[in-house]
Amino acid sequence: MEASSEVNSDLARERSRATFDKENLINFLYGGPAAVRKKRYLENIIKQDPVLQRGRRWAFQSREERADTGVWKHLYVDKLQADLGVTDVKEREYLRDAAAAHEGYVLGLHFGMIIPTIKNQASEEQQKKWLPMAESMRMIATYAQTELGHGTFIRGLETTATYDPKTEEFILNTPTLSAIKYWPGGLGKTVNHCVLMAQLFTEGVSRGIHMFMVQVRDLDSHLPLPGIEIGDIGPKFGFEEMDNGYLKIDNVRIPRENMLMKYSKVLKDGTYQQPPSDKLAYGSMVLLRCSITASVAKCLAEACVISIRYSAVRRQTEISPGGEEAQILDYQTQQYHLFPLLATSFAMQFAGNFIDDFYREKYPDIAKGRFDFLPQLHAMSAGLKAFSAWTCSAGVETCRQCCGGHGYSHASGLPKIYVDCTPACTYEGENMVLMLQVARFLMKEYSKLMNGQPLSSVVQFLKCDLTMKSCMAEEVALKCLVLAYQHRVTRLVADAANCIQDIIGEGKSQQEAWNSCTVRLFWAARAFCHAFVVENFVNTVSEKHLDEKTREVLTSLCRLYGVHGIITNLGEFIQDDFFNSEQIQILSHTLTVLLREIRPNAVALVDAYDFPDTVLQSCLGRFDGQVYQALYDYAKSSPLNEKEVLDSYYKYIKPAQMPNKELFSRL
Amino acid sequence: MEASSEVNSDLARERSRATFDKENLINFLYGGPAAVRKKRYLENIIKQDPVLQRGRRWAFQSREERADTGVWKHLYVDKLQADLGVTDVKEREYLRDAAAAHEGYVLGLHFGMIIPTIKNQASEEQQKKWLPMAESMRMIATYAQTELGHGTFIRGLETTATYDPKTEEFILNTPTLSAIKYWPGGLGKTVNHCVLMAQLFTEGVSRGIHMFMVQVRDLDSHLPLPGIEIGDIGPKFGFEEMDNGYLKIDNVRIPRENMLMKYSKVLKDGTYQQPPSDKLAYGSMVLLRCSITASVAKCLAEACVISIRYSAVRRQTEISPGGEEAQILDYQTQQYHLFPLLATSFAMQFAGNFIDDFYREKYPDIAKGRFDFLPQLHAMSAGLKAFSAWTCSAGVETCRQCCGGHGYSHASGLPKIYVDCTPACTYEGENMVLMLQVARFLMKEYSKLMNGQPLSSVVQFLKCDLTMKSCMAEEVALKCLVLAYQHRVTRLVADAANCIQDIIGEGKSQQEAWNSCTVRLFWAARAFCHAFVVENFVNTVSEKHLDEKTREVLTSLCRLYGVHGIITNLGEFIQDDFFNSEQIQILSHTLTVLLREIRPNAVALVDAYDFPDTVLQSCLGRFDGQVYQALYDYAKSSPLNEKEVLDSYYKYIKPAQMPNKELFSRL
Repeated sequence: MEASSEVNSDLARERSRATFDKENLINFLYGGPAAVRKKRYLENIIKQDPVLQRGRRWAFQSREERADTGVWKHLYVDKLQADLGVTDVKEREYLRDAAAAHEGYVLGLHFGMIIPTIKNQASEEQQKKWLPMAESMRMIATYAQTELGHGTFIRGLETTATYDPKTEEFILNTPTLSAIKYWPGGLGKTVNHCVLMAQLFTEGVSRGIHMFMVQVRDLDSHLPLPGIEIGDIGPKFGFEEMDNGYLKIDNVRIPRENMLMKYSKVLKDGTYQQPPSDKLAYGSMVLLRCSITASVAKCLAEACVISIRYSAVRRQTEISPGGEEAQILDYQTQQYHLFPLLATSFAMQFAGNFIDDFYREKYPDIAKGRFDFLPQLHAMSAGLKAFSAWTCSAGVETCRQCCGGHGYSHASGLPKIYVDCTPACTYEGENMVLMLQVARFLMKEYSKLMNGQPLSSVVQFLKCDLTMKSCMAEEVALKCLVLAYQHRVTRLVADAANCIQDIIGEGKSQQEAWNSCTVRLFWAARAFCHAFVVENFVNTVSEKHLDEKTREVLTSLCRLYGVHGIITNLGEFIQDDFFNSEQIQILSHTLTVLLREIRPNAVALVDAYDFPDTVLQSCLGRFDGQVYQALYDYAKSSPLNEKEVLDSYYKYIKPAQMPNKELFSRL
Repeated sequence: MEASSEVNSDLARERSRATFDKENLINFLYGGPAAVRKKRYLENIIKQDPVLQRGRRWAFQSREERADTGVWKHLYVDKLQADLGVTDVKEREYLRDAAAAHEGYVLGLHFGMIIPTIKNQASEEQQKKWLPMAESMRMIATYAQTELGHGTFIRGLETTATYDPKTEEFILNTPTLSAIKYWPGGLGKTVNHCVLMAQLFTEGVSRGIHMFMVQVRDLDSHLPLPGIEIGDIGPKFGFEEMDNGYLKIDNVRIPRENMLMKYSKVLKDGTYQQPPSDKLAYGSMVLLRCSITASVAKCLAEACVISIRYSAVRRQTEISPGGEEAQILDYQTQQYHLFPLLATSFAMQFAGNFIDDFYREKYPDIAKGRFDFLPQLHAMSAGLKAFSAWTCSAGVETCRQCCGGHGYSHASGLPKIYVDCTPACTYEGENMVLMLQVARFLMKEYSKLMNGQPLSSVVQFLKCDLTMKSCMAEEVALKCLVLAYQHRVTRLVADAANCIQDIIGEGKSQQEAWNSCTVRLFWAARAFCHAFVVENFVNTVSEKHLDEKTREVLTSLCRLYGVHGIITNLGEFIQDDFFNSEQIQILSHTLTVLLREIRPNAVALVDAYDFPDTVLQSCLGRFDGQVYQALYDYAKSSPLNEKEVLDSYYKYIKPAQMPNKELFSRL
């Protein structure tokens, strides 16, 4: 039985009392009415597609079923995209999310990473050979970098590719246990090739990490080739449909032409030609990193939609004795958890837009070898990836907990969003490592400041006067919020720099000093990212083409994001008395005032994300709010209910009830 | 292939350089050498038991297999406990944890909650009837309280039991969709009875929530009885082996004698007799709540063991260019994440010991109707449950993330610990609701203080002078740490009380004022729990029978717990200039000094938890540190590798590779 399509009356009332027109916000978020129409048109196609209704719901599938479903859904959506002529990246995503949200895209790395890598790293001749193979899926490949013992630190990879000029081949090996490739998505069962990252040895010299196209399975039988041991790495927290794999290579020979040779080259005689710059290899990694902020922001947005709609429907405890039970969204403590996260979801989405635009604007220059903006692009993409991944994945979990017991059921959709979101803290650069790269950028900029050199544009504020006090007053101006965050960064950057100087002053090396100050460096980098996100949010709500009502609502969220961040990290803001105690009282009071201010618009705000139910896949987050009917339906269709009495009753419980406990002679 | 039993050289070196004898700490934690020997003896029995080696490893089982395994393992361990004559609660737990750690105890509620409930709430006559049935498992029951629409707020339950004096029966109903029982453990498939919480109606009057023994399935066929619709609620984030169930009741009649009548009674003619006190029903709930702190502390302890051992084995990035890659445990940022959690795991374990002892000491009086200590016991058990569940479950996730990519694999054991730990934030009282109950206790005590009445023993410190400044100096005395935490509580309690008074002053009701200040009330309650845990840790490390070396190490951890908590919540400590800026510098500096101080003992400290590998079930946390071999073995045995080529290759991929894309005509 399908849940009724009548809208829950609490939700309906919430919607009617919003102070802004949510369609205006939807248009702002998705790029105008035409784009929104297209989005809904595509999502509707998925909703009505009969093939996609096949099979059991995701939560009821075994890992094997999920792996199977993952493949056909992926190919089916590819086909739909092609048939509909959908080429725009965002539009393709609307289709895929509506068809299989958070279900993993088994062939995603092949299309999203390998084909771009061939284009960026292979010579023209190689491209002519491999691109058609990859596009027709005759070749299916993944990116084999991570090893059992080696992750973010690429130079530490142990897999070797040793050139043999006699046969003009590379000899590939994973020479140790810790060199075994481990984790690449699709490597276990799906691919027949991989782009292997390996230490190149030629002329008896180590030349560093290079990429090699390696066939791992037969193109027809799909059986592993000689010298290749390959398989799935087993069940994980999530990504169950994905056959992350391992690969052990024992003296496998590949032709010289299989090294990706757009930049570096090995000639027939083994002569090694260096790339013009070692910065050129970073392109696709930075691109992927830039896309993470938007994607984790979307996870948090979905979790906010689910938990806020549910909090409007769920009632618990009379506020006054004997009265009606209150919507839990009316509890200040519930608002205190959820509304700052709602604000964060917008903040992170806008930060994702920024870094995306920044990449598109600056990358063409970088690809041409003009590296002026590379340090900033690198620092911003690393910092925003790490900061957003931590913030959003923790936020998704808070949303889940705010749904009480039901949040723990897969019926809520929340656990699935979480396990899909949290690995972003680790992949494409472990978060803490990235944060310390941001810190390195900040230290370089700080030393420029000390030497009177010009600063990069994103850190101009480091010039500010640290003895200045906050301009914060009753109205909590956005400008004063931004200045507070920038003041915090400036103080923490100076603090970290002093830490390093002090230790060098004690006679330690630069390296030792750095390692003794990484906690402070981390604090500085985190504060920098936070300040940037606040400033970018303020810039976004100041954009001219927003209507006034929508701007008001977004401004409340922006102010809440800023104020909540200060209250939560207050110590870092007030150690130097930047705020006086009256200002702290103002901020603390404003926090609860903003919760009250946002309350009437909370449901309309999450509606404005315009996620169809097919994307949310949540009994709690349904647009119609028919939560309990949906949970009941979910329960009734649980696979464990296919049999009225489980075998375990006959096998174990009944014998255990017998006085002679005959069960135990059987076990 | 089993991983080699040789100990990884890094781990061996770590162990050799500890400054204390870990056996002393093990004895301290587990109650002396004899208790430790018994513990190891029991764990060893499990390790060598051939029956428990049956079947696939937990991570490789489907939900159906897990549900099946859950039942036989549970019964098997029961039998072992009986055969070995093990009756001590802790010793029983050693056996169970070693046999099935974090795998859920399907019959746990029957033995752990139902039998005690019968003893505490049933009349003597009822006990005579039901106890033998329950003990022989002829009756298997669970506790049916939570409904689709109702959780922590028990008075809101909708299920009804209406007395019919004509037949001397109760008529049971779940009259609405939201009244359907949902979540009780084992309700779906395992039990044949439940203790039903329902609104009693007799003589046409509602009498509030009472307990009823209700048979739901036939004792022989195990089929649901007429009027009963019952089943599993479907897959969840964790607890997959558990058949949490739903129950819909349609006009089911049960005899009058099935109401649990130790305190309240319904006579034959329908006359209702009130219980002597409504406080008597809380006993088993408080007991369960008291046990949660120790159990989440154990989750965090296990996560610390895994992540710290792995961090000693894992190497990443040269600290100096060209040098050997460093153990990641040597990175200050890794220590900054893990060591405060290690300290927290001890702090919470000691807090768990406290609340356990407190319950055992005070409960006998309460059961006799002397309620002097009930408010304190209630506040402490609620507060420590909520505070520890939040802290420990978030801590487990941090430990997981500190293991990088491998932490995400079920091979690490960490996701399983997390999903087992996090529901403690919700069950036995939703955390935020409990925190506000603590706040209510604090407000009552504060008003006693204002009225010059004597205070409860746990809040004596509220009398402290708020204008006093910290005694913190270079040596960071434990006493000054405790005072700082107590100062923070005192300020936040006054702050919350003022918030309420101010709003009442504006003409609002007491109730409205409370609801407008719950964020501040929450801050006060959280600070109170935090202060208690710090003070209790300090008391524990001051115990006389610790040897000096062990005391030194525990004192470092205790100091770290205190200092880290201040730095992380600095704003709440310094808003009123309780610390001057020099003291803040001291604390900030001490934080990194303590990380360095603990570093050489980190592995020995986690070894001192003395969890055998059978409990940890982790490739990363193995005692021998043979991490990579174990991960490789885990991968090779993944069920997805049972077939070299998956069916999806033939069904979808091969057709998709054909030029005519014949796949899509098939789907």
